[in-house]
Parts: sequence; C-alpha cells; structure tokens
Amino acid sequence: MESVLFQPLVDALASGQPQAAVDAANLFNAADLAEFIEQNLENETGPSLFQNLPLALRAKVLGYTNPETQLLLTQTTPLGELALLTAEMPSDDRVGFFNLLEQPRQKQLIRQLNEDDRADLTALLAYDKGTAGSLMSTDYAVFDSGITASAAIDILRKTAEDKETIYQSYVIDEDEVLIGVVSLRRLIIAKPDTVIDSLLATGLVSTHTDTSQDDVARLIAKYDLLALPVLDDNDHLVGIITYDDAMDVIEAEATEDIHKGGSVSNLEYGITTASPFSLYRSRIQWLVILVFANIFTGAGIAHFEHIIGAHLALLFFMPLLVASAGNAGAQSATLVVRGIATGDVVNSDWLRLFNKELLVATALGLTMALTVWVVGMFRTEIAIATTVAITMIAVVLAGGLIGILLPLLLNRLGVDPAAASIPLITTIADVSGVMIYFTIASAILGP
Amino acid sequence: MESVLFQPLVDALASGQPQAAVDAANLFNAADLAEFIEQNLENETGPSLFQNLPLALRAKVLGYTNPETQLLLTQTTPLGELALLTAEMPSDDRVGFFNLLEQPRQKQLIRQLNEDDRADLTALLAYDKGTAGSLMSTDYAVFDSGITASAAIDILRKTAEDKETIYQSYVIDEDEVLIGVVSLRRLIIAKPDTVIDSLLATGLVSTHTDTSQDDVARLIAKYDLLALPVLDDNDHLVGIITYDDAMDVIEAEATEDIHKGGSVSNLEYGITTASPFSLYRSRIQWLVILVFANIFTGAGIAHFEHIIGAHLALLFFMPLLVASAGNAGAQSATLVVRGIATGDVVNSDWLRLFNKELLVATALGLTMALTVWVVGMFRTEIAIATTVAITMIAVVLAGGLIGILLPLLLNRLGVDPAAASIPLITTIADVSGVMIYFTIASAILGP
Repeated sequence: MESVLFQPLVDALASGQPQAAVDAANLFNAADLAEFIEQNLENETGPSLFQNLPLALRAKVLGYTNPETQLLLTQTTPLGELALLTAEMPSDDRVGFFNLLEQPRQKQLIRQLNEDDRADLTALLAYDKGTAGSLMSTDYAVFDSGITASAAIDILRKTAEDKETIYQSYVIDEDEVLIGVVSLRRLIIAKPDTVIDSLLATGLVSTHTDTSQDDVARLIAKYDLLALPVLDDNDHLVGIITYDDAMDVIEAEATEDIHKGGSVSNLEYGITTASPFSLYRSRIQWLVILVFANIFTGAGIAHFEHIIGAHLALLFFMPLLVASAGNAGAQSATLVVRGIATGDVVNSDWLRLFNKELLVATALGLTMALTVWVVGMFRTEIAIATTVAITMIAVVLAGGLIGILLPLLLNRLGVDPAAASIPLITTIADVSGVMIYFTIASAILGP
Repeated sequence: MESVLFQPLVDALASGQPQAAVDAANLFNAADLAEFIEQNLENETGPSLFQNLPLALRAKVLGYTNPETQLLLTQTTPLGELALLTAEMPSDDRVGFFNLLEQPRQKQLIRQLNEDDRADLTALLAYDKGTAGSLMSTDYAVFDSGITASAAIDILRKTAEDKETIYQSYVIDEDEVLIGVVSLRRLIIAKPDTVIDSLLATGLVSTHTDTSQDDVARLIAKYDLLALPVLDDNDHLVGIITYDDAMDVIEAEATEDIHKGGSVSNLEYGITTASPFSLYRSRIQWLVILVFANIFTGAGIAHFEHIIGAHLALLFFMPLLVASAGNAGAQSATLVVRGIATGDVVNSDWLRLFNKELLVATALGLTMALTVWVVGMFRTEIAIATTVAITMIAVVLAGGLIGILLPLLLNRLGVDPAAASIPLITTIADVSGVMIYFTIASAILGP
C-alpha cells in the first residue's frame, strides 16, 4: 500500500488530538491500520494510535499483525483491559494470542475471563499446534434438524454479530452429530417454510480435530469451501476453519517448503523479521552436513590421486560435473517434493516417474555431454573430453534418478520429504559425481 | 480421497444402468466427481459417466478438472450441446475453457452462443493472461445507490442462481462508478428500510483489470476478502475475483517459485502431468548455463595448475568449498526471493539485509571454518587445513552476500527475481569459490 493513502491518518496524528486520529482511523480497513501501526512501531506513533482505538477495532487490528507486534502492543495493557480485549477476539485468534504470552500472564489473564470464554479457550488450548483443532474457531452458526428456512434466518439475524461466518451454517441431530451444511444463499432463496434438512449441500465435507493444517488447507482449496467443519472423536461438531485461515496456511506452507528447498530449515518468520540468531540456526545445519559429506568426497579424490596427478586437465571439469549431478538431482527432487506437497504425486507413482525420468535425464545427459564435449575439445585432448562427456551422461542420470526415488522413499517412511530432500539429494549427487567421474576416467585413461 | 468413498458410484456404473449411475453421481460433490472421472479417464468409465450427467453438473465438474481433461471430455461433444454447456459455466471458467479450444472450434462455438454470453465472452477474452481481467467473473451482484436493505435482499433472492457470490454485493452511483461493498451479513442484520449506502464496508478495496494475478491474490489474502471488485480505466465495476480463485493462484505461484528455485523454469503442470519433452525443456536451460559457467571455473583452475600440482591435497576440499559457497548463496537468495514474493522484502531494505547477512554469514563461516579445520587436521597438514578454514569464511561470506544483493538488484531492474536468482547465484558462487580458494592458497602456500 502506498504511504500516500495513510496521509489523512498522518495528518490527524500530527494535529495532536487523539479523537481526530481515532476518527481518521475509523475510515481504514483493520488490515491497513495494522500495516500502518507495524510501520510506525519504533517511532511510537503506532503504539499510541493503537492504544486510542476502540476495543473492538483493537481486537481486529491485532488479528492482522504478526506475533511480535501483538506482544509489543499489549505488553503494557492492564490485565482487566487485556481480558476485555481478548474477549473481543474471534476464538481462533484468541488462542493464538494467548499462546504468545508468558505463563504467569497467561494464568492471570485466564482468571479474568468470563466463564464461557474461559471454557472455550481451555478447550482450544488442548489441541496440538498445527492441527485442525488449534486452527478452528468455535464461533459457528448451528441449527437443530427440522427447523424452517425462515426460523433459521431469524436465528442468524440475531446471532450474526458473534459468528465467524453466517454464510455456512451447520445442522446437527438430537445427538449433536453433524448431519449437513446449509448455505445462506439456499436459505434466502428457499420458500420461508421449507425445512432446512431439504436444503443441505450435496456431499458433506468435514475433518477431524487431529488433521494436520496442510490437509485442512488442501480440503478447503479442493472443494472451494468457505468454511470446513471440524469434528471430534464422536462426530460432534466442535469448530470450523474458514477460507482466510486456509489461505494463510497455504502461504506459510509454501514459504516453509521454499525455505527447505534452499537448505533453510525451521525458520518461523521471513528474513526481515527473523533474528540473526534464528537465521544462523536455520542455515548452519545443512552447511555442517556438507562438511561431513565432504569426508567421503575428499576420500574419493584421495583414492584417485594418481590418475588426477597424471591428468591434471581432469580437474578443470570436476566442479562442472559435480554441479551437474547436484543440479539434475535438485531438479527432479524439486518436482517430486512439490508434487507430494500438492497431492499430485503419490507413492504408487514411483515406477511411472522413474521411467519418465530415465527418458528425460537421458535426453538431458546427452545434450549436456555433447555441449561439454565441444567445449572440452577446445580446452583439452580428445580422451579427456570423451571421458567428461561419458561421465556427464552418467552423473545427470544418477542425480536425476536419486532425485525421483529418495523423496518417495522418505515419504514412504513417513518423513516429510520437503524437510530434507533437496539439500540431501544435492549432497548425495555431489559425492556420487566425484566417484563416477574418476572411476570412468580410470577406465578410459588407464590406471 | 480414499477410493472406498467412490464404491457406490463404482457399483452403480457396474450395474450397466445409466440412470443408476447418474443417481449415484448426484450424491457426490462436483470436486469428487471430477477426481473420479480423472482417475478413470483411460478406462472409459470416466468419460461415459461424464456424458450422462445433467448439463449443469457437467459444467460444474469441468470447473474442477485440469485443462487436458476438459479438452478430452468435450472433444466429441456436438457443437450445439457444447454451446449449452459453456452457457452453464461461470463466466471466468468459460473464458479459461474457450482459450483451450483450437481456433476453428472457437469460431464455431462463439456463433452458437446467445448474444449476452457472446458479448461477455468477447469482452473477457480481450484481457491478457495472468491479469485480473482474465481471472475475473462478470456474474456479480450490483445495486444502485439509495435502495433499502429489504429491496436489496429481494433482488439477491431473485438473481442468486446466476451469481458467483451473493455474500458481497457492489453499490454503484448513477455514472456506474463503484462506491462501496455491502455484505449479505449486514443486509440481513439491518432494519429492512435501512438505505444500503449506510451499510457499506469500511475502506473499499478494489483492483484494476491490468493488475497481475499474484497482486490480486495478495490483496485478497491481506484483507481476508471473499471477493475483490475489478475496475476498468473509468472506475466502472467490470468484474469480481473470488477467494477460491485467489487460493488457486497462490498455490500455482508457489509451485512456480519452488520449481524455479530448483532450476526448473516455466513448467505449467506438475511432474505427473507434464510431458517428457516439456520436462526436458524446463530443465535443460540451467544445466547448459552451468557448462558455460564452467569455462570460467575451468580457466581458473588451469590458471592455478602449478599450486594444485604442488599441493594435491588442496583438491580434497575443492568440492566442499565450492558447495559451501553455492549453498550459502542459495540460502540467502531463497530467503530474499521468498520475501520479495510475499511482499515482506522491498528494495529499500537492502542495506539492512546486507548488514544482517554480514553478521549471519560471518557466524556461519566461522562455524564452518572451525569444523573443516578440525576435519582437515586429520587428513592433511596444518598449512592446508588453515588455508581451507580461511577460504571457508571468505566463500560463505561471498556467497551469502551475493545471495542477498543479486535478487534485489534483479528486482530493481524489473526482472522477476524468482525466475533466475537461485540457480544463477549458486553458479556465480561456485565460480567465485574456486577463484577465492586458489588465490588464498597461493598467498599462504607460496606461488
């Protein structure tokens, strides 16, 4: 957002009248206010504007800020006011916020909540992070089976303020088991005395509190859902997850997968927010693994020292061959890992993908071999150029096939392939590249 | 989805009675039917079930299948029926489908459409692929300024069937300029005689037909919108883009970024769907660039041939040092590129990120140097181990800083950094790694 849009707010703040600032703020989206406040955290304009906003707007704004900002903006809020503020939050945001606080403040805060909010919060806190239970909101609209469309609309009209959404409502039977979903679209189109049971959507889609957040996001995206109902072990409806939370999950999972593909593991925030120490921690792991993998590469080179000594020109191509093996491996692994993440690739595809890669990697290897042979002819003798060309086919094929099989193997073993595959495969392909090179060189150029 | 869920459908199809199959199909979500049909494309069960479905359901199912399947399922559909089928599609799906057809069939089809659909289709076809215009639906709900909430609800009730969504409606003035958005939630809560202009949402968010689809998706995600209104050059409302399309864009953009980070460019489908030739094409580019980059690395090694010949043990560490430089570069580039894609990083952050990387990469380099020095002491003499350790600090620092600066430079120059950055940086860091290594070695071990 261009900062010129914030000009009315800046002017109002500059006037020094708190009420003028609040009036100006009321003309903005909560998401924009959150952005303005985050941009002005350090110069105190942000926090002071936030403190002056009405409680409900403050709760909304917090929902659009990152965790660090949430803590910063509320650290000096008195306990009673904090309780009122958390009471205003949607139930899913409230859990997220509560989890940020330190234990003593959590304990004090929970005592200040009213009974309903406290029970709701305690129930939601019990679910593991990253599950549907931890993501869901308990502010959903629910009807008993058998009521009419007009009765349903009346209920929605009266309760809409407190609901996460009223566009999808949930119909339960006398045992509180979820039997279907009815949209507000169908309710308002239907004749007023239609029984809602005849208006249920085809093919009920629901999930369980234990389902992982990425599976939740994938269900919502697949079925284009506005909201996904979440059931407990007894098929009782206990919450809903809305599309906007699914969008955040998709974005966060993509960031995580992209980071892991670039050998950066477990980094919760992006590079601008993350602390130098957390950046260090998330990067050092794969770099150090490289050093230990090098013990093998180094030993391989030492083993072939005599052939290298006799043909130093072999060295000119070593970085290229190693990089080609690693790159071909990274390419096929990237494709498979992303396919697994989007549900496009399943384990039983392995033979089909292996055969396809056999074809593709052979074609890639042949092209590369021809290119490097031509380059090599300008730089060295024909025997070495030929050695390099043959090696190229072998390493691209080896890298490509490892890149297909290893992520599928990890997935089969229950390890998230994104967490390890790409840097691991690049490293394995690097090591194999050196071995293959000098083995072929020994065979062609003599012992 | 587990195939046991499709059992009723499989049984009905096995009975050989088309009506039984259609009855069974009617109990499924369109998304699930699409999945079943795609899984059974080759054994003819899929296409024959599709042909027997009612027109409206067929149009829905097509919206959930990939482009290849859409073509396959409709290739034998007679033109008149195809016109009825396209008429049933939401306007955004219709444009996508139409673009798949070959020109002669496009011309024949467009003549068969009724006047309204033809005008709508022609208008939408004029927008460039990947823009808001090409993604938007023209089936939105619109009100004139000044009507009451109850009049608005009556309009929605009558027109809901044809609308993409009725949960957000758009209010225009007498010049057809968009003045605001009103949600169905506010309409049904409001007193019936409330004028809708007093119910408009705070902070109107809209976009222009030329906006890129990733900016559209980012707006929808940022403001948690159900639908984003799209304006033409005169601020007239011409379409809306709904959250489900934004979700698809976020997923597709993430796939593209992940592919590019793994040196795979411009691959439209995932690995299971893409043809061997398109996989080859998307991968060969970076592999061949590697070969040419190697001309520099090879020349570098040739230049230092004497020092290598004198100290062959230097070779043991060459693959490690090259890989460390490349890896450190890939890590920082990955973080910056993802940050740019999510809007977290902007060009003016460069100095702050450079300084942060200076700190982080120095820490990484020192850790790596210590590790490799200890490993080196077991394998070679102290002078070489020390050379390697010093080089390690230099290459990690060089790789890390290139990884920060190059994506920002490309972004500044208007090049999408994801398209090139990570493989390019790995290659540049590889080449620099070799040069730095032997330069330091020459300085320490003598000419």
